[in-house]
Amino acid sequence: MPGTAPSLLVVSAHAGDFVWRAGGAIAAATLRGERATVVCISYGERGESASQWMQGKTLDEIKDIRRDEASAAASALGADIEFLDAGDYPLRETPETVAALVDVYRRVQPTVVLTHPLSDPYNGDHPAAAQMALQARVLAQAIGVANSDGSYPTTDEIIGAPPVFFFEPHQPEQSDFKPNVLLDITAAFPLKQRAMQCLPAQKHMWDYYTSLAVRRGVQVKRNAGPNLGLPVETMGEAYQRYYPQVTDVLA
Amino acid sequence: MPGTAPSLLVVSAHAGDFVWRAGGAIAAATLRGERATVVCISYGERGESASQWMQGKTLDEIKDIRRDEASAAASALGADIEFLDAGDYPLRETPETVAALVDVYRRVQPTVVLTHPLSDPYNGDHPAAAQMALQARVLAQAIGVANSDGSYPTTDEIIGAPPVFFFEPHQPEQSDFKPNVLLDITAAFPLKQRAMQCLPAQKHMWDYYTSLAVRRGVQVKRNAGPNLGLPVETMGEAYQRYYPQVTDVLA
Amino acid sequence: MPGTAPSLLVVSAHAGDFVWRAGGAIAAATLRGERATVVCISYGERGESASQWMQGKTLDEIKDIRRDEASAAASALGADIEFLDAGDYPLRETPETVAALVDVYRRVQPTVVLTHPLSDPYNGDHPAAAQMALQARVLAQAIGVANSDGSYPTTDEIIGAPPVFFFEPHQPEQSDFKPNVLLDITAAFPLKQRAMQCLPAQKHMWDYYTSLAVRRGVQVKRNAGPNLGLPVETMGEAYQRYYPQVTDVLA
Amino acid sequence: MPGTAPSLLVVSAHAGDFVWRAGGAIAAATLRGERATVVCISYGERGESASQWMQGKTLDEIKDIRRDEASAAASALGADIEFLDAGDYPLRETPETVAALVDVYRRVQPTVVLTHPLSDPYNGDHPAAAQMALQARVLAQAIGVANSDGSYPTTDEIIGAPPVFFFEPHQPEQSDFKPNVLLDITAAFPLKQRAMQCLPAQKHMWDYYTSLAVRRGVQVKRNAGPNLGLPVETMGEAYQRYYPQVTDVLA
Amino acid sequence: MPGTAPSLLVVSAHAGDFVWRAGGAIAAATLRGERATVVCISYGERGESASQWMQGKTLDEIKDIRRDEASAAASALGADIEFLDAGDYPLRETPETVAALVDVYRRVQPTVVLTHPLSDPYNGDHPAAAQMALQARVLAQAIGVANSDGSYPTTDEIIGAPPVFFFEPHQPEQSDFKPNVLLDITAAFPLKQRAMQCLPAQKHMWDYYTSLAVRRGVQVKRNAGPNLGLPVETMGEAYQRYYPQVTDVLA
Amino acid sequence: MPGTAPSLLVVSAHAGDFVWRAGGAIAAATLRGERATVVCISYGERGESASQWMQGKTLDEIKDIRRDEASAAASALGADIEFLDAGDYPLRETPETVAALVDVYRRVQPTVVLTHPLSDPYNGDHPAAAQMALQARVLAQAIGVANSDGSYPTTDEIIGAPPVFFFEPHQPEQSDFKPNVLLDITAAFPLKQRAMQCLPAQKHMWDYYTSLAVRRGVQVKRNAGPNLGLPVETMGEAYQRYYPQVTDVLA
Repeated sequence: MPGTAPSLLVVSAHAGDFVWRAGGAIAAATLRGERATVVCISYGERGESASQWMQGKTLDEIKDIRRDEASAAASALGADIEFLDAGDYPLRETPETVAALVDVYRRVQPTVVLTHPLSDPYNGDHPAAAQMALQARVLAQAIGVANSDGSYPTTDEIIGAPPVFFFEPHQPEQSDFKPNVLLDITAAFPLKQRAMQCLPAQKHMWDYYTSLAVRRGVQVKRNAGPNLGLPVETMGEAYQRYYPQVTDVLA
Repeated sequence: MPGTAPSLLVVSAHAGDFVWRAGGAIAAATLRGERATVVCISYGERGESASQWMQGKTLDEIKDIRRDEASAAASALGADIEFLDAGDYPLRETPETVAALVDVYRRVQPTVVLTHPLSDPYNGDHPAAAQMALQARVLAQAIGVANSDGSYPTTDEIIGAPPVFFFEPHQPEQSDFKPNVLLDITAAFPLKQRAMQCLPAQKHMWDYYTSLAVRRGVQVKRNAGPNLGLPVETMGEAYQRYYPQVTDVLA
Repeated sequence: MPGTAPSLLVVSAHAGDFVWRAGGAIAAATLRGERATVVCISYGERGESASQWMQGKTLDEIKDIRRDEASAAASALGADIEFLDAGDYPLRETPETVAALVDVYRRVQPTVVLTHPLSDPYNGDHPAAAQMALQARVLAQAIGVANSDGSYPTTDEIIGAPPVFFFEPHQPEQSDFKPNVLLDITAAFPLKQRAMQCLPAQKHMWDYYTSLAVRRGVQVKRNAGPNLGLPVETMGEAYQRYYPQVTDVLA
Repeated sequence: MPGTAPSLLVVSAHAGDFVWRAGGAIAAATLRGERATVVCISYGERGESASQWMQGKTLDEIKDIRRDEASAAASALGADIEFLDAGDYPLRETPETVAALVDVYRRVQPTVVLTHPLSDPYNGDHPAAAQMALQARVLAQAIGVANSDGSYPTTDEIIGAPPVFFFEPHQPEQSDFKPNVLLDITAAFPLKQRAMQCLPAQKHMWDYYTSLAVRRGVQVKRNAGPNLGLPVETMGEAYQRYYPQVTDVLA
Repeated sequence: MPGTAPSLLVVSAHAGDFVWRAGGAIAAATLRGERATVVCISYGERGESASQWMQGKTLDEIKDIRRDEASAAASALGADIEFLDAGDYPLRETPETVAALVDVYRRVQPTVVLTHPLSDPYNGDHPAAAQMALQARVLAQAIGVANSDGSYPTTDEIIGAPPVFFFEPHQPEQSDFKPNVLLDITAAFPLKQRAMQCLPAQKHMWDYYTSLAVRRGVQVKRNAGPNLGLPVETMGEAYQRYYPQVTDVLA
Repeated sequence: MPGTAPSLLVVSAHAGDFVWRAGGAIAAATLRGERATVVCISYGERGESASQWMQGKTLDEIKDIRRDEASAAASALGADIEFLDAGDYPLRETPETVAALVDVYRRVQPTVVLTHPLSDPYNGDHPAAAQMALQARVLAQAIGVANSDGSYPTTDEIIGAPPVFFFEPHQPEQSDFKPNVLLDITAAFPLKQRAMQCLPAQKHMWDYYTSLAVRRGVQVKRNAGPNLGLPVETMGEAYQRYYPQVTDVLA
């Protein structure tokens, strides 16, 4: 029965975003034996590849580099990855990309969705990706919405209403990002490190995001309920839940 | 070892609030065999006892009535109850009441705390109670804070950092209440009904809060992940988590 | 003289929205002998017609059903209705639809406008409709803006600055809907009920919206000034005024 | 029958505030033949009387001057005035002042209440006055709340739930003041001018608040519905309604 | 070396906006001998030229009038001006206009950017212009983003990260405009006046914006640190800084 | 002439807060030869001295330790320090402490004020200190407000309106802290480090706040205007300006 097995879907604007911001959550899922799928809407070929442009690489060469790096990083995290190659800087919302994402949702049947937050004054591609991720999630629930090629009935089942979590932007306060979920990624962190090392052009980010994981880990400990026995070196990632949590136990 | 057993603490401004707003959560906890403790800061003797005043009852008679009703309701929910008798309308924040709550926290060692939200333009007693509940929770964590009678060392252990959930106010939008947790109380609802019936002076509220549980139940279903198989007659209560959720699984 | 007679314009994303959310306001207007016009931007043929799709109906059949139902409901409310058939799920903002709405505004000369609120995380069509309703209202005020077919001068007079009220979304708190107007629809409620019964596929909504009217009616009574003598069974609808109220009496 | 006749209550932190900020609304009410009552919690003797202190006046002399000026201004507006002399800079919330205000509410039976907004980073006395005005309004509704001298039953009837409007602070944006009611005070403005002239020490404010009335008048015209025929020289005052408007006509 | 010389870029939706809202800042810059460039995305030919339409002017005539007036006003302020003629009412975000703005940014190498705020319920063209101004500013920083004609490498250098200030909208509170910078324009005000007089069709605005400058000047004085010795007749303009200020001295 | 020389006043709830959160700003000021004064409202003896309590120290011993450490840290930063010993956990707003702060303001004649932000769900002492710092700043401006011992006229001159900056709380997003000023503390950082080392009981914080300075330094670089030539190892502190900046140059 589709939808009952845990299935994590990550919608990433550029080829590298999912590593820095959600690598821990992805690795934690795959370490539990769950399925994880990353969709990169673009390669980040124009906006996040400055060093390659300065080396005189062509657009296609840069796309290839970014795809290979991202594929290696996904593999290190144990995740599947696919690329929509919809262009970046600007990454624009289009009916075609939204429709392609609807197909992905129905094929992947996610039980959890991760994407960018809805505001980022430093990078408009991120909110554009998030808007499409959210829009496609709603459309994929409707039995009357056709496949992206216009055919009907739908190739895959419609989906339920999976929870959505926004991962952390580069400058959280400026992006009105207020974490309401602190994820303990201590066990998954070595995999996240390995994935980060698949992105050699951004070596300065390795330290930056390790230091951020320590910082969020301190907050994990500060906000944990009593007697959880968390280790000193707890590592964390911050998320913002978009829809209300549904539960039968307050905890 | 204190703190490891689940222990629910509910801080209620008046004698009846915990029934209407959190009865489902309380009953759900006690049905799981967990301990639940309700603290009523006042009896609601002046502000929420209009019918008794109109019948010419005295202040002490009214307090007795309210205490008996609240005790019966707590009993129906399977919860312990205690009363601080700190006065209402206005219920004012005082050092003494905060100190008394610090003692309660350390004695009860809550793993979850429920109280009113921090804003209510229709009833200032509710935010005042919540402010004290939050303040005492922080003070009770500090080893340097003495017992309420000034003695030291502390009679009970200091506490950890239990999560806090605000329960729903009477007019949620006007109180800036935005639920981020929807609690399925279907199994607990019969106990909540029994508790409501312990408050005969507010009979019109029975229907009102049953209808609200249906409404929040519809939202439980709308926001649930796929294939949870919730029954048509799902009943719900809405909560607002104050601190970030700490978890090792996004769901 | 155009614009002096009361004229209510309701801009609805789908064929059914105006009934559930604004039926009381519409009926109240027509009961006072005023003109009311409903514009449905789409039929809701893809996103809000699940049961028909499951019965194997075609797109055109579904549109016909929705149009007939909505027409019957408008008629029960005493309102005129028109359909732009601009597609749904997603309902997208287009220059053509905005221009068509400009024509409507100038023809109808509304003194009051009702539409969806600007945020709804559960249904992107609703904010898209509202954005177009707001945009067209501003354009329709400008003498330099041509008719939708490009002809000039404008067929109808430009409009003034009618107040805009957002009607209640399905999950108000999640949509940042904070009512600042509570409308007493007690007298109009029987007409609203009749209109709801014109939508037999959503029978479970009849109870839901009756219960909501009771709930908003309780708030009407709680927020009313002194001695208004409102009946026990006051029924209400909640609205959010978008522009400041202009008045010469505070009340 | 108490409460049915229109009765305006203005709660002002200092002796002059009601003139600058609400003089138009007060005069508009008295011009309609309605009753208006101003309560000044303090004289503004320390915080708003710099020129008198620099002239070497004593505290009592300054209070006398302020009381006389405010009385003259109230008289020019056709309003009654009373003074609680509770001290300023800082004006502190006390149980005694709140209780005194409860008595005022029950005696005056207001159908409309005006006071300061809840935030003002330039003057803490203003929010303190507003908090007490709001608190007393709720307490005065409860039959169980005694008179300020502790006697019971209450001397005057309890009150209903009159609407509350915040008047404009000196720096509106910094005080998070977002007007949602624009009041046309054109007819009342000559009376407001006369009242301003009763405050000779603040002569520079006469122009400032005339210019503000023009500015708010422009907004009255911009936000008015069509064809209201407002004069070019419309004068306005801005207000922020605290509770939802209750109405049976959207307009 | 590009970018080191002060260079002010003003992105204006319509031909007149920059005069009323930012004329003081522009004149202050040019009086310091700095370069200032105004880009008008449209002429405001449909939405802000009512009197010309009523005189029966054609679209092209109106554009000419607006261009001439705006050019004269820019000249009075000592600023360069250019026009994108992208249409107004509605002014729509398009890839072409964004790309044209990217070219402008790289050519002008601004050290400071002024534009409209992101919300304006009275005029959708203003936020649309601001969105494009912000988007182009980010794109212009990326070495991988080509020239607007698709050629590569870029004709001009990429830019740094100049600060952005929103200027004041017509109804600031309704547009969620909260000034966090108050600019003293006393010395520049005569130039601003001269620029306003280049727009004769809006003569009523001359007084309005002079009165606003007085009002913001009062706030300049109220918010200034001690002993700044500001003149009585201080004139001001209000701005909202979008990105954090970077500094090495708190002041 | 008082007030013309730069004078920095830091109002700190507990003895250590000013080091971690504002040490860079303080050292930057004293390195420029300016005066800096720290006022600690309490020693943090109950709430922030857990290790000493666990070692069995008495209250007075703990106060002594905290005072000595804080004095050494202030000295390392080149700042004066004074202690109000008003108690902590809870640190309560009292008229006496506010009045004592008014005296400090008038004596110190600050041209810049630093304090805690107004919200901190993890520590109520911090907002209480900030509220008093803000309140005293306003009172100290009024010529009618007496000295703290009731004597009059005031011993020192009244103050102007110095800008206020909130320093960064421990969990910024949870405390609604949105930095709008990023301070480059690169040159001052060695002094901050030396001051941190004066607090040996919180050795784990040394790394934490060094890592935070790196993080805020990255944001300094990201938000800086073009061509500022900032070093790779830029260190930063984040601040939130409370009142609008007054300036005659936008930059």
